[in-house]
Amino acid sequence: MPLENDKFENFPAWYDEVVIKAQIVDNRTLVKGANVLLPNGYAIWENIQKILDKMLKDTGHKNAYFPIFLPEELLEQEAEHFEGFAPEVAWVTRVGDKKLERKVGLRPTSEAIMYSMFCLWIKSHADLPLKINQWCNIIRWDTKDTKMLLRDREFLWHEGHTVHTTAEEAAQQVMEAVNIYKKLFDQLCLPYLIVKRPRHDTFPGAEYSIAFDTPLPDGKVLQIGTAHNLGQNFSKAFKIRFENKEGKQEHAHQTSYGVTTRLIGAILSVHGDQKGAVFPPSVAGTQVIIIPIYFKGKGEVVAQAVQEVYQELKDAGVRVETDLRDNYTPGWKFNQYELLGIPLRIEIGPKDVEKGQVVLVRRDNGEKIFVKRDEVVAKTKEVLDQVQQSLKEKAWGKFNEFLYEVKNIEEMREKYPKKKGIVRSNWCGSKDCADELKAEFAVEIRGTLIEKKEEPFGPCIFCGKKAADVVYLASAY
Amino acid sequence: MPLENDKFENFPAWYDEVVIKAQIVDNRTLVKGANVLLPNGYAIWENIQKILDKMLKDTGHKNAYFPIFLPEELLEQEAEHFEGFAPEVAWVTRVGDKKLERKVGLRPTSEAIMYSMFCLWIKSHADLPLKINQWCNIIRWDTKDTKMLLRDREFLWHEGHTVHTTAEEAAQQVMEAVNIYKKLFDQLCLPYLIVKRPRHDTFPGAEYSIAFDTPLPDGKVLQIGTAHNLGQNFSKAFKIRFENKEGKQEHAHQTSYGVTTRLIGAILSVHGDQKGAVFPPSVAGTQVIIIPIYFKGKGEVVAQAVQEVYQELKDAGVRVETDLRDNYTPGWKFNQYELLGIPLRIEIGPKDVEKGQVVLVRRDNGEKIFVKRDEVVAKTKEVLDQVQQSLKEKAWGKFNEFLYEVKNIEEMREKYPKKKGIVRSNWCGSKDCADELKAEFAVEIRGTLIEKKEEPFGPCIFCGKKAADVVYLASAY
Repeated sequence: MPLENDKFENFPAWYDEVVIKAQIVDNRTLVKGANVLLPNGYAIWENIQKILDKMLKDTGHKNAYFPIFLPEELLEQEAEHFEGFAPEVAWVTRVGDKKLERKVGLRPTSEAIMYSMFCLWIKSHADLPLKINQWCNIIRWDTKDTKMLLRDREFLWHEGHTVHTTAEEAAQQVMEAVNIYKKLFDQLCLPYLIVKRPRHDTFPGAEYSIAFDTPLPDGKVLQIGTAHNLGQNFSKAFKIRFENKEGKQEHAHQTSYGVTTRLIGAILSVHGDQKGAVFPPSVAGTQVIIIPIYFKGKGEVVAQAVQEVYQELKDAGVRVETDLRDNYTPGWKFNQYELLGIPLRIEIGPKDVEKGQVVLVRRDNGEKIFVKRDEVVAKTKEVLDQVQQSLKEKAWGKFNEFLYEVKNIEEMREKYPKKKGIVRSNWCGSKDCADELKAEFAVEIRGTLIEKKEEPFGPCIFCGKKAADVVYLASAY
Repeated sequence: MPLENDKFENFPAWYDEVVIKAQIVDNRTLVKGANVLLPNGYAIWENIQKILDKMLKDTGHKNAYFPIFLPEELLEQEAEHFEGFAPEVAWVTRVGDKKLERKVGLRPTSEAIMYSMFCLWIKSHADLPLKINQWCNIIRWDTKDTKMLLRDREFLWHEGHTVHTTAEEAAQQVMEAVNIYKKLFDQLCLPYLIVKRPRHDTFPGAEYSIAFDTPLPDGKVLQIGTAHNLGQNFSKAFKIRFENKEGKQEHAHQTSYGVTTRLIGAILSVHGDQKGAVFPPSVAGTQVIIIPIYFKGKGEVVAQAVQEVYQELKDAGVRVETDLRDNYTPGWKFNQYELLGIPLRIEIGPKDVEKGQVVLVRRDNGEKIFVKRDEVVAKTKEVLDQVQQSLKEKAWGKFNEFLYEVKNIEEMREKYPKKKGIVRSNWCGSKDCADELKAEFAVEIRGTLIEKKEEPFGPCIFCGKKAADVVYLASAY
């Protein structure tokens, strides 16, 4: 049962097909863009939460929960931020059959909601740094087309919000978030370009935004995480002041950052294939599925071996399941769990029991590995590690194919329409050139590297004037 | 710094004071009843989630996430259910500056949202049972007074929803949920009365509702968990049908159940005292706080001992923190962590280091325990277990004081106004008698025991006619 649409020839159709058939999302709801995240998809999110939550707690973040309701008087306090989000805010105006006196929005992000409280909490430098994290649902009633997991009207996310005494500390905090996300994406086997977004693509109200982009199979990139240095913009708007060591009042320095359930879409897009989803063992809800191969008269010995192997793996902390149903053939089950993306399958038949072995089959490359019965736990863990490593290497290999250099507009016209992907080039810094590039190629200036300063290797790709920066261009989701 | 309001003389004021001062909730938001759950309160919820989520997964529940949006056409499909919730549903009618064609509600519970999907998922008996669990926020814009954690317009909960082939299996599922909740409440040291609610107090659309009530210090009870047998009411409304083994179409049998962040309020109410919150070790965010007693010239040895004990406890899986600040006195810190509810304090001063000991101080009863340095891990775990056990026993003792028998209306008039609490009596079953009792005493018929069938020990408490059941009466939050 291979998927009908080819991943590389028609990625958008393949994506929609795999999201549905791998039982990640059910989109047959009555509100467009507000879908059901099914158990096979939600499990990925739970594992992402576990990995990320631990890193956030280890770096001193405290979890809390703030209301979903965004009173309009709050949103109006930071004009630039308000303008950025106003068109997609959903407004509650009625309760039962009564009209509310003043309408209440649903959070498109929690800066305004949180910072109106931070203002009450922070009095002195001794109250800082404050590092708050929230796991919640977010409502952005996007007017553009929705796309399952990639652009939903309701999605789940984490948002980190921190407050500091100095600009330096806030800048360091942004880097702490960047490093946490690097570790997370490494565990998800997602490759990334880390850039500072150009001014015109900065988060509304921020000083600057750092973003992670990953290329999808059609050569367009997907933003998978962002961290913003908010400077003192919000602390001025929301009056977040502290008494410094000299007894003087200062405005605090702030940051915010987040990743969303969009990551599930990224994982599907990067690792999936014609047979369905392929999940990295690190986040797969089920890492190993054991399938018995029954033969007449041999059912019992097989069932017993399956149960033993299941228990051993479970005791060793492997997320393992069995499928003992006898109204489906082994072949049907193989296809089914390949479709669902389970990283490793264990087959046990009567001959395997006789020989004292089991058969491991990798989801990512189909490799069959015969393993001695008494080595099954050690070997399973080893193979899961190998799968994890392979997925990461393969994805970074693909990433590197997508990244190439272009010197001028003629070269761009020659190469980009065919290759797409991420173009490394030079830019003068003017918004006009960015707009012209967008008009002609549908690409955006994604930004400049943050981990090293790159010197321009030529003039601006569009106007030919002196370049200010090496930038990365790509079409984006 | 004892609390200003007495827990037993003025419970409502004590409650509001402890919720705020123990840093559980900040209610200075602009939307009444939609408050901030602060880190010290959210940590309790996270631990409740861990305990409950494991039990749900171990019994075959799968987690998923459904949209917050409730289209009105769905809510209208089950008339009784709709009527029950309609007055408190918040409606989104606008996005940005545009009016929606049809208004969309925010979930007051997810039956309608989920069951419109279950209808698409379930075709055959082989698809059943289906056991889905969701962790999410819930919006009930109550028109009655809000009360922090006990009656919020937005709160967090889990909701289990199951689908079965037979009525028997659905009834068993309700009992599975009841048993899971018993284990949970035992871990929270919350005592409970488990009753089947009378018909007039059944969940809208359910066949019957099982509920857990716990008495609060003022003698009123709080519902802390419910499990509903929905019968075929929703499956008929939402067309959830399956093909049985004989090839015939049948309507499925359903259940739903949930507990909410109200549990944090229950824990505070039952265990708290004049010094502040008292959290059971099972769910306390921090179980042990280590406080150094610095003396001039001895700072370093104390700091080293604190660090070592901290590391040992942490490695042993204890949730432990230190407070090394030198701008607060030990006495101030003692008060502070007692206010916050941390179950156990460890004090380490220079004399303790000399003697090779540490001092454990129990939050629940103030007991000081001198422990040899090399026994600190074992002793800490032992004392935490003792605290857990004591809290449970004390709470059940209190529960038993609140429960008493009343034979007739004269006895009720004599005893109830002074004693309040839970009254065991007899009831004929008529709604009129229930209404009269409510009018005179502000009590409700909470229901009949489910774990044993009780024979009436006299006539109906109100009308004096033959009683149908032994019932429990109480005033309720």
